[in-house]
Amino acid sequence: MQKNVVKRSKKSGLPPGTPVYIGEHRADEVKITVTTYNETTFHEKEADAIEDAPPLLDTRAIQWINVDGVHQVDIIEEIGKRFHLHALTIEDVMNTDQRPKVEDFGDYLYIVLKNLSLNDQNGAMEAEQISIVAGDDFVVTFQEDKIDAFTHIRERIKNGANREKIMKTDFLVYSLIDEIVDNYFTVIEGLGEKIELLEEELVTRPTPKIMEAIHRLKSSVFSLHKSVWPLREVINGLERDGSRFIHESTRIYIRDVYDHTIQVIDTIEIFRDMLYGMIDIYLSSISNRLNEVMKVLTIIATIFMPLTFIAGVYGMNFKNMPELAWPWGYPAVLLVMLTISLSMLFFFKRKKWL
Amino acid sequence: MQKNVVKRSKKSGLPPGTPVYIGEHRADEVKITVTTYNETTFHEKEADAIEDAPPLLDTRAIQWINVDGVHQVDIIEEIGKRFHLHALTIEDVMNTDQRPKVEDFGDYLYIVLKNLSLNDQNGAMEAEQISIVAGDDFVVTFQEDKIDAFTHIRERIKNGANREKIMKTDFLVYSLIDEIVDNYFTVIEGLGEKIELLEEELVTRPTPKIMEAIHRLKSSVFSLHKSVWPLREVINGLERDGSRFIHESTRIYIRDVYDHTIQVIDTIEIFRDMLYGMIDIYLSSISNRLNEVMKVLTIIATIFMPLTFIAGVYGMNFKNMPELAWPWGYPAVLLVMLTISLSMLFFFKRKKWL
Amino acid sequence: MQKNVVKRSKKSGLPPGTPVYIGEHRADEVKITVTTYNETTFHEKEADAIEDAPPLLDTRAIQWINVDGVHQVDIIEEIGKRFHLHALTIEDVMNTDQRPKVEDFGDYLYIVLKNLSLNDQNGAMEAEQISIVAGDDFVVTFQEDKIDAFTHIRERIKNGANREKIMKTDFLVYSLIDEIVDNYFTVIEGLGEKIELLEEELVTRPTPKIMEAIHRLKSSVFSLHKSVWPLREVINGLERDGSRFIHESTRIYIRDVYDHTIQVIDTIEIFRDMLYGMIDIYLSSISNRLNEVMKVLTIIATIFMPLTFIAGVYGMNFKNMPELAWPWGYPAVLLVMLTISLSMLFFFKRKKWL
Amino acid sequence: MQKNVVKRSKKSGLPPGTPVYIGEHRADEVKITVTTYNETTFHEKEADAIEDAPPLLDTRAIQWINVDGVHQVDIIEEIGKRFHLHALTIEDVMNTDQRPKVEDFGDYLYIVLKNLSLNDQNGAMEAEQISIVAGDDFVVTFQEDKIDAFTHIRERIKNGANREKIMKTDFLVYSLIDEIVDNYFTVIEGLGEKIELLEEELVTRPTPKIMEAIHRLKSSVFSLHKSVWPLREVINGLERDGSRFIHESTRIYIRDVYDHTIQVIDTIEIFRDMLYGMIDIYLSSISNRLNEVMKVLTIIATIFMPLTFIAGVYGMNFKNMPELAWPWGYPAVLLVMLTISLSMLFFFKRKKWL
Amino acid sequence: MQKNVVKRSKKSGLPPGTPVYIGEHRADEVKITVTTYNETTFHEKEADAIEDAPPLLDTRAIQWINVDGVHQVDIIEEIGKRFHLHALTIEDVMNTDQRPKVEDFGDYLYIVLKNLSLNDQNGAMEAEQISIVAGDDFVVTFQEDKIDAFTHIRERIKNGANREKIMKTDFLVYSLIDEIVDNYFTVIEGLGEKIELLEEELVTRPTPKIMEAIHRLKSSVFSLHKSVWPLREVINGLERDGSRFIHESTRIYIRDVYDHTIQVIDTIEIFRDMLYGMIDIYLSSISNRLNEVMKVLTIIATIFMPLTFIAGVYGMNFKNMPELAWPWGYPAVLLVMLTISLSMLFFFKRKKWL
Repeated sequence: MQKNVVKRSKKSGLPPGTPVYIGEHRADEVKITVTTYNETTFHEKEADAIEDAPPLLDTRAIQWINVDGVHQVDIIEEIGKRFHLHALTIEDVMNTDQRPKVEDFGDYLYIVLKNLSLNDQNGAMEAEQISIVAGDDFVVTFQEDKIDAFTHIRERIKNGANREKIMKTDFLVYSLIDEIVDNYFTVIEGLGEKIELLEEELVTRPTPKIMEAIHRLKSSVFSLHKSVWPLREVINGLERDGSRFIHESTRIYIRDVYDHTIQVIDTIEIFRDMLYGMIDIYLSSISNRLNEVMKVLTIIATIFMPLTFIAGVYGMNFKNMPELAWPWGYPAVLLVMLTISLSMLFFFKRKKWL
Repeated sequence: MQKNVVKRSKKSGLPPGTPVYIGEHRADEVKITVTTYNETTFHEKEADAIEDAPPLLDTRAIQWINVDGVHQVDIIEEIGKRFHLHALTIEDVMNTDQRPKVEDFGDYLYIVLKNLSLNDQNGAMEAEQISIVAGDDFVVTFQEDKIDAFTHIRERIKNGANREKIMKTDFLVYSLIDEIVDNYFTVIEGLGEKIELLEEELVTRPTPKIMEAIHRLKSSVFSLHKSVWPLREVINGLERDGSRFIHESTRIYIRDVYDHTIQVIDTIEIFRDMLYGMIDIYLSSISNRLNEVMKVLTIIATIFMPLTFIAGVYGMNFKNMPELAWPWGYPAVLLVMLTISLSMLFFFKRKKWL
Repeated sequence: MQKNVVKRSKKSGLPPGTPVYIGEHRADEVKITVTTYNETTFHEKEADAIEDAPPLLDTRAIQWINVDGVHQVDIIEEIGKRFHLHALTIEDVMNTDQRPKVEDFGDYLYIVLKNLSLNDQNGAMEAEQISIVAGDDFVVTFQEDKIDAFTHIRERIKNGANREKIMKTDFLVYSLIDEIVDNYFTVIEGLGEKIELLEEELVTRPTPKIMEAIHRLKSSVFSLHKSVWPLREVINGLERDGSRFIHESTRIYIRDVYDHTIQVIDTIEIFRDMLYGMIDIYLSSISNRLNEVMKVLTIIATIFMPLTFIAGVYGMNFKNMPELAWPWGYPAVLLVMLTISLSMLFFFKRKKWL
Repeated sequence: MQKNVVKRSKKSGLPPGTPVYIGEHRADEVKITVTTYNETTFHEKEADAIEDAPPLLDTRAIQWINVDGVHQVDIIEEIGKRFHLHALTIEDVMNTDQRPKVEDFGDYLYIVLKNLSLNDQNGAMEAEQISIVAGDDFVVTFQEDKIDAFTHIRERIKNGANREKIMKTDFLVYSLIDEIVDNYFTVIEGLGEKIELLEEELVTRPTPKIMEAIHRLKSSVFSLHKSVWPLREVINGLERDGSRFIHESTRIYIRDVYDHTIQVIDTIEIFRDMLYGMIDIYLSSISNRLNEVMKVLTIIATIFMPLTFIAGVYGMNFKNMPELAWPWGYPAVLLVMLTISLSMLFFFKRKKWL
Repeated sequence: MQKNVVKRSKKSGLPPGTPVYIGEHRADEVKITVTTYNETTFHEKEADAIEDAPPLLDTRAIQWINVDGVHQVDIIEEIGKRFHLHALTIEDVMNTDQRPKVEDFGDYLYIVLKNLSLNDQNGAMEAEQISIVAGDDFVVTFQEDKIDAFTHIRERIKNGANREKIMKTDFLVYSLIDEIVDNYFTVIEGLGEKIELLEEELVTRPTPKIMEAIHRLKSSVFSLHKSVWPLREVINGLERDGSRFIHESTRIYIRDVYDHTIQVIDTIEIFRDMLYGMIDIYLSSISNRLNEVMKVLTIIATIFMPLTFIAGVYGMNFKNMPELAWPWGYPAVLLVMLTISLSMLFFFKRKKWL
């Protein structure tokens, strides 16, 4: 849960535009990957700092700089300087609790997205912030985690797939967003499997722990919703406002990724509905079990209380109790007792308690 | 439930526009039916591949190609090539978890719909994706299942009903959509009957299984809603944006099918309300039965505990217990016991527990 | 409940525009009333078929044809032919599960409304479809039931009230709608009385049957909502789109009937809130009664279990039990028992259980 | 509750525009107060009929006619004639279940508001309808009750406060609305105090009556909401549509009263949330008390059942029961019993039931 | 809770525009801080009245007057006169239950905000009203509390940070709003920690007090929402309507603070969801504990009732009970009893009650 709470107090009192990394302390180095390509050539280079990046000689080439890790202020600021990024952009890149959004800074588009993954151990939803800065002939991507989310795309560019389309930065940006949205489907499948497992367990063996598991899943679904919902506006805004950057031929692809986003949102709603339904079923199963327990108690008490009373009566020490002296008194009483208990059982049978 | 979860992970890492069939593996062949007609003539031909389709000689004729099954990538791609479909259209046709939508690709309209049916065995809602591609003189329909949903329409064209209207592809498209929406009414009647049966059972014999049945029905209603809700926008979009394809005289028919969609949505809301009301009734019936059980227990305990106590008192072995020696002690005690139990019963009567 | 489920499957497979009566089979004849009037004259005639209707000689007169019963296809079609109605209009007139709507067919406005009544026997909401076709100098009204909902209006025209206003068909249409909306207030009063009765019963005598009664009322309120909610749009659409038919002077009257519709909707919301509140009260009253029952049981058990135990102790047959031989042993034990039960009662008194 | 149900059936069947008083029968006379003033003069006169009102000689003066009571049809109609009011306005003035609204009749604005008060005895919300008719140099106010809600304003005009502003009818209208909205704050404070009292009682002494009290308060809050919510649109409509009547300098005041309305709505929402939270707390307190009761029962039963059983064992009459003859048998059994009960208590202590 | 209820009745009956302080009575003096600066100079002066403020000689300088405390009518009115503030602005400054809003008075913008803090003792949310009046070369801020919320900003201006930007009043206004929004993050972290603590306690030790704690937190979250939600519109309105005051370069900063507001709102929604989830978990834990208690009772009763009955049977005093004379009768009965209790335990084991 802790993850949901924003840790922004580190920033209070600082003037706006001050870049501060608000995530956990990390010791590893930021990794920079510079990919330069045009329709015929392809260069890839790993660097520790942006100065190492080769200059963009050919104006017909595109440079894509991918930065894994945003915890080193100096490196991020250096990149910012090179591409003339606004102070607020730099601040937002490092401030890893941004909401997905798109902003037009005139010279470039700034896009914030969340890449999600399900933690295998505790099943929690983990979110990584990904910032995309898209200019006319360059794209810079900042990833919070060290694991590169875009290896597939680099591979495809290398292999020349769609190279002619990806020559425009808008198609590269689309491909990056598409990659992240595709990833949501993986997360959704994972969540779906967990929900089904829980549903099965709920029917066969409803324990109090299920309530907490439902609660945890609900909060994962909620996180997912929080990341995907604003994405709708982002993609809409990209189509509507970012018109200068988005060419007509890319527009249909962006509409496609928009459809996928709506699909994710639809599935999230189904999950929510399923989880709320499971709470209903769980609560009614508790009530049912209470009914079961009470029935057992009532049956036992209703059978044995009258019998014990009768035994008690003939255990009294009155001098004058003629039944006690009767030779068939004892078996007669036992017979009476048997009759009572059988009729009780018959009564419960008719009431469908047995 | 499984059906709700999207199985898109097959596609992750592939470049956009790659056609991949994401449904279950199927062994049967795709079936192609080519219907060519104009105001006076009518030709129908079954084919295994699109090359077998006769060329469209007369420009005043309409060609309707119906494809049953979308699991064979090569056949679908071939059709795509013949009608110059966009790569994304081909991808969406095979990607059978699309949301109902309408897209204008300039040369043609692309419409995705869901055809629904209630599985007779387990009562689950089953959805089949139907794609409609409508050009100026051709219509291509792709159906996920092998069962043809459009036999009625082909029959009507053959018989010449509305032939003059259906000469325009927009009216043919309208007829196809109308057929699917009419089918929703059948599904709704089936659901309605199930809900009524359950409601009756709920009043006469509320068992824990009802809760699960309600849950299942809720999830069927939810699926239905998921298919019909976006249809509203689709038909709206058809009227608003697809103006180039939709003639003025067809517009009133489209408004009619729009009204039907709203009616389906209204009924879905009624079903939801009924199901939620049934959960309320079920939960209150559990509580009522618990009350019943507890009353029986309390009545039994309240009557027999004092009696057993009295019997216990006169079962004590004190030397000096004068009552024991009284000749009428025993009947007196029995009388006292009778009085107590009768007054208890009277008390419960007055409290309306009996 | 059955009534909520649409029985449209009779129509599946038929081409659009085919008139089919989907209601219950009826044996009685359709009744046609033709009212012709202008500022000075008034003619009324009952007819079995539309040919019997007198032709409209004076162009300054208005003809209002009222049709009671829509189950005879041929009669309805004949009327449709005479006034040049669109095939879809004819279809909708007979298709008695339409949603309230207004449609502009160029030559005439087509309005669908629902007239409601509370069944006195079972308290269910019954809906009758009323279609209004309004041209420049004629109005045709189709009523599903045989009972004429518009006698008041015919009476008023006969008596000359508002005759100069009602000379325009728009004012006649307004009067018809106003009549139906006024009728909703009667239905609302009936529902309100039922809810109050139930509320009173809930407080004095909450039985399990109340839950079902609440559920039934909720479903009546829901039906009412379903009929009135789209009416808002209808009247709005009349004012906005039907401008050609609606004169400026009638506009203020339509705004008035719109206000009434809003008032009905407001009251419906109040009813809903009251019914949901009653469910809450009912459920908490069940819990309270369970508490009551359990308190009685606990008090009885807590008092008599220790006493019975003590009696059991002195009923043991040990040789060496000195208390048994004490002369005051028996009264001492009785005193101890009295003390215990009194202190128990005091304890429950302090806990406010008594 | 009864008040929520509209009693309009008195009107059914009457032609539109027929003035009918639908409230309770009242015997007292309608009271008319005529206030005429300009920047320098001020006249006030009470009258029984509108003919008694002095004619407006000076065109630079404003005449404000206040009518207390709307149950005398003839008086209201007379006033209507004098100021050329539309028949629907007269009807609405007398029809005291109007929804707050503003209507532009060309020559005058017609505004309906609700003045609220909390009944001190039963705490119910009581609503009085106030109609304001505002022309260029006259304002007519109709109040349902005899108690004058506008004495403060008349006093202020008399004393000359804001006389120069109030010379325009728009500012007078604003002052009247402001007075009514200010009154809502008094009602809100009253409701707030009741809610707090109830909240305190809920924590200290939760009885079943609290549920009904919450329900009653909820329904009061609902009435308040019903009166205030449409007021938003009224004031908005005044600013937007009534532009001919509203001068630029008054506009800022109207925005101010709009802000107050929003504040009232915000507080209503807080009240709702508090009341729903109280229902939750109440229900959980019932469950907690049930738990308490059951724990007492279980502790008593768990301690005494084993003990009573042991006593029962040594109360058996077998010939051969060696323990009975042991000299220390009796104290040994008592010791065993003590040990059992102490260990039971320890067990409950550990389970935190004690 | 009391704080939520508006105490406006002090104002009823007063003419609009009358300044009345509606908060608690305060004895301390209002403190005025005058900060005058331009790109090179910086003056700061504390004053008791606005006359003490130095006149603004240099037109290229900005004067920021901060007023701590709004309870002294005369001082506030004096400031109002000096800057030609509208009577309604003065009234709103003192009326400390305003809703956040922005108003354009032509010569100046008037902004109302709420500064929040969590009371450390009782954990309640405390709101302080802050009014900002922004003209072309002056800014006046009114703070309800004596504690200055803007010391950081004054410090930064003093140190020259962003001095060139803050030379325009729009950037100063932005900085003030940003400071307050940054403060919300601190409040959110505090709330988040409380919620987590409660969540932990809920799982380990669910007592009835938790319900009240959840309720209190819900109401804090509600207050927060009430303050932040209208802020969205305020900032939107600032960007849209206040265009005259807001320069293009500041616009991007305002968009940034808007994003932060949305983030706060998102977190509020997460908190709400968590709290509602906690209520669900709490209620189900009560039910579970009841089940536990009932199981213990049922197990005990089911084991000992049959045993006690058997003991009772052999405690009867019938003359003719052959078993009593058997030498192995006693041990045989004990063995039977042991068998019964063991089989009962086995039965409960299988039912998973143990």
